[in-house]
Amino acid sequence: MNFFKTTAITLGASLLLGACGGANDEDGQAGEGATEAAIEVTPPFTADMIQTAKLLRERGLQSDLAYQITEDLTTEIGPRLAGGPRDAAAVEWAVARFEELGFDRVWTEPVEIPQWERVHAEARVTSPFPQPLVITSLGHAAGTGPDGVEAEIAHFETLGDLQAADPADVEGKIVFISNKMARTRDGSGYGPAVQARGAGSRAAAEKGAVGLLIRSIGTDSHRFPHTGGIRLGPDGERGVPAAALSNPDADQLVRILERSPSATVHMTLVNEIIEEPFTTYTVVGELTGREAPDEIILLGSHLDSWDLGTGAIDDGAGVGITAAAARLIADLPQRPRRSIRVVAFGAEEIGLFGARAYAAAHGENLDNHIIGAESDFGAGAIWAFAPTVHEAAVPAAQRIQQLLAPLDIEWGGNGLGFAGPDMGPMMALGMPGAALRQDGTDYFDLHHTADDTFDKIDPDAMAQNQAAYAVFAYLAAEWPGYFDHRAAGEDAEAEAAE
Amino acid sequence: MNFFKTTAITLGASLLLGACGGANDEDGQAGEGATEAAIEVTPPFTADMIQTAKLLRERGLQSDLAYQITEDLTTEIGPRLAGGPRDAAAVEWAVARFEELGFDRVWTEPVEIPQWERVHAEARVTSPFPQPLVITSLGHAAGTGPDGVEAEIAHFETLGDLQAADPADVEGKIVFISNKMARTRDGSGYGPAVQARGAGSRAAAEKGAVGLLIRSIGTDSHRFPHTGGIRLGPDGERGVPAAALSNPDADQLVRILERSPSATVHMTLVNEIIEEPFTTYTVVGELTGREAPDEIILLGSHLDSWDLGTGAIDDGAGVGITAAAARLIADLPQRPRRSIRVVAFGAEEIGLFGARAYAAAHGENLDNHIIGAESDFGAGAIWAFAPTVHEAAVPAAQRIQQLLAPLDIEWGGNGLGFAGPDMGPMMALGMPGAALRQDGTDYFDLHHTADDTFDKIDPDAMAQNQAAYAVFAYLAAEWPGYFDHRAAGEDAEAEAAE
Repeated sequence: MNFFKTTAITLGASLLLGACGGANDEDGQAGEGATEAAIEVTPPFTADMIQTAKLLRERGLQSDLAYQITEDLTTEIGPRLAGGPRDAAAVEWAVARFEELGFDRVWTEPVEIPQWERVHAEARVTSPFPQPLVITSLGHAAGTGPDGVEAEIAHFETLGDLQAADPADVEGKIVFISNKMARTRDGSGYGPAVQARGAGSRAAAEKGAVGLLIRSIGTDSHRFPHTGGIRLGPDGERGVPAAALSNPDADQLVRILERSPSATVHMTLVNEIIEEPFTTYTVVGELTGREAPDEIILLGSHLDSWDLGTGAIDDGAGVGITAAAARLIADLPQRPRRSIRVVAFGAEEIGLFGARAYAAAHGENLDNHIIGAESDFGAGAIWAFAPTVHEAAVPAAQRIQQLLAPLDIEWGGNGLGFAGPDMGPMMALGMPGAALRQDGTDYFDLHHTADDTFDKIDPDAMAQNQAAYAVFAYLAAEWPGYFDHRAAGEDAEAEAAE
Repeated sequence: MNFFKTTAITLGASLLLGACGGANDEDGQAGEGATEAAIEVTPPFTADMIQTAKLLRERGLQSDLAYQITEDLTTEIGPRLAGGPRDAAAVEWAVARFEELGFDRVWTEPVEIPQWERVHAEARVTSPFPQPLVITSLGHAAGTGPDGVEAEIAHFETLGDLQAADPADVEGKIVFISNKMARTRDGSGYGPAVQARGAGSRAAAEKGAVGLLIRSIGTDSHRFPHTGGIRLGPDGERGVPAAALSNPDADQLVRILERSPSATVHMTLVNEIIEEPFTTYTVVGELTGREAPDEIILLGSHLDSWDLGTGAIDDGAGVGITAAAARLIADLPQRPRRSIRVVAFGAEEIGLFGARAYAAAHGENLDNHIIGAESDFGAGAIWAFAPTVHEAAVPAAQRIQQLLAPLDIEWGGNGLGFAGPDMGPMMALGMPGAALRQDGTDYFDLHHTADDTFDKIDPDAMAQNQAAYAVFAYLAAEWPGYFDHRAAGEDAEAEAAE
């Protein structure tokens, strides 16, 4: 309600009504989340903005730029573990590419990170059915030393079962947690299953185990173990050496244990833990706003990847999508009112280091970060637009969704509270966010595996993504309204405070 | 035509006609290859045989025995490279399992084989885009020594292109052959593509190369390199050290070479070549025929696997299918007229050593091998029955197909000349064969990779396979006719000779 007053003051009611009528006719459908009544009285965007948004949408669908950028990054850099051998090359590549793409400003921001390197991982059943098992070390896990450890298996279906176990049943054994994540479009199977990866190594240590094997946190049935970080304890405790079995190997170990509960496994993890910190960089490309250059629309992705694959879906695609979306906007006759910042965060995989550094560096000006969205859920098509904005800004967000609807993007509801992992530190400080929710049905088939490579990417889905990001970023940058408390206006704020 | 006379003499015309009518009604459809007229006058099987075949078909569809046997072999033995660490355990397992299944006789036959062991394979692009490449050594390939070789890439699309190349363009380089096999139901894409694997290492050596990388001979786009044997030269020449890149890595190398034709790669292959021969074994289980025990129906598979996976589709499934089919027949009230021999050949993968040894050992009695069929094309459903029999035996083969038709198995035509790789040496000596052709659309996604594991197997397709093998083997064993020249009778033979 207060939103109407604010936007009417800003934009003028007649213009609003005109823009609205035209947009409804041309879009042909209203989004699920917006009622007809709301559309008629609350359009925040001008006819010009809507025309431009449509132009960007069409150009986005016709461009292969996001796909090309992702191809180049994954080919010319390949794996780019934060702090790893190609970290600096990746930063250099991104700076050069952003400059080439025509951003008005390109810069880097330092990110201090711990160093950890995967050297060697090997496991085998030693009794009663000797055979190799395919494993990979979890990120930041402790090693076993080169001689490895050999022990009986203590099998638990879930982390909770391990936590509830009698230490006498675990002492001296290698814990095996076999929970498998569920396949869903929205990735909601990940959260419950990944607890075993995050907390398993310390839980196993507390019970006196000598190692941890988890079933990979992934939905595939291929012989790729999925890596991913463990959560360190408050004093940096890593717990026992911890590795993931591929899903087929986890199935195999379950079958072996059914036949022989006292089966033994030998596992060797050699990991290098380097005490001195490493400095990597977040790379930023900015289109400087024509009227409000200090107001920022933040488009995030992360530049680093795990070391096993070439980081195509995680998150080369996100770099490509956001950079290409900005380039589409850069090709317009004039810059939008506000600045658009494409931020390829450093060191996401190992713990959101780049995003936390960004929040620390820019925290004082986060009011100027109008809204943020990160592309970091693969290369599947976007199916929903789900903002986390002030209630008064919902009609504007719904209008954005309506302009995304021809891309088969539905209204995802307000208040999801998530707009990509690297948006988290900024959203925790009050920045509004928008989740452009991608279809993640197959995402966890590849996630954190050696199989995360460029061939898995569908160029049509990439085009849909870049079109959606371009529409969203442009409208948010051109429109003078706000998505946070300012959307409600000062009067409403005062009212609410009473 | 001569067939009619022979069978009429043997079985009696009235019985034949009775059986035929009943079968047509109950099967509900005639096979594609058999005309109605042919069915009415040429049924070689009695009503009892047909009833029994139908019973086996139903029991086969309801049993999970083939699936269970395959689960046990792949779980309890796992990878079983001929001459490798689990070779002897696999033989012991098969003997014990065949005895447990109730064969009348179980024995082994020795097979002398060369020894070769995969120790380590590693490759990386060194310039201009340093990154690892996923490779595996080809079977029996030479090694590079532990320091490896580093060179520019000489890229050819096909083996023919390499063979036609100017040696000056190849000398000192690592040859890369990038041809990709086509996906087909019948596996016909394999033959053309696999030339690069068989002959590439020696062709590269002839041109002065220092190594060979081929695109994996496989249809998948996963990061699994496909191994498989090279063909040695007449004096045992292995050519240059030779490895396969996974398909995504081959794509990556193509992209890198598009950007930088002078890209360099370092590859290390450590393979152990052991001069002294190793003795492995073919394992045979026989149901002894009640009237003609010396006449053999041969059901083949191979016990060995490549070392990377657990040999589930290649060829644990074949062991399970043929052994389970025989067990279904063993559960009948009486043994069929002829013997059914389930032969799990040793050392197929490294060059049909078991099959050649079998042909050498039994060559004098191959007239007693009435017909043979091998299950060695994965675990997909059978879609066609394609015999290679004397023209006079075609009606009998068509009648078998009609009894398979309710399993969605069509007539595949006579004279394919192939009934599984291990049948080759015996068919070359005149043994009739039958190809129970499986759907291989996905077979080469997994073939010779680490991903050939039990989870890939569909139990329903396994049941269909065991039902089909049981029907085929039973009818061939119970029916007193022949599939070779004897089907035509002596008169016809004499006529033909005039």
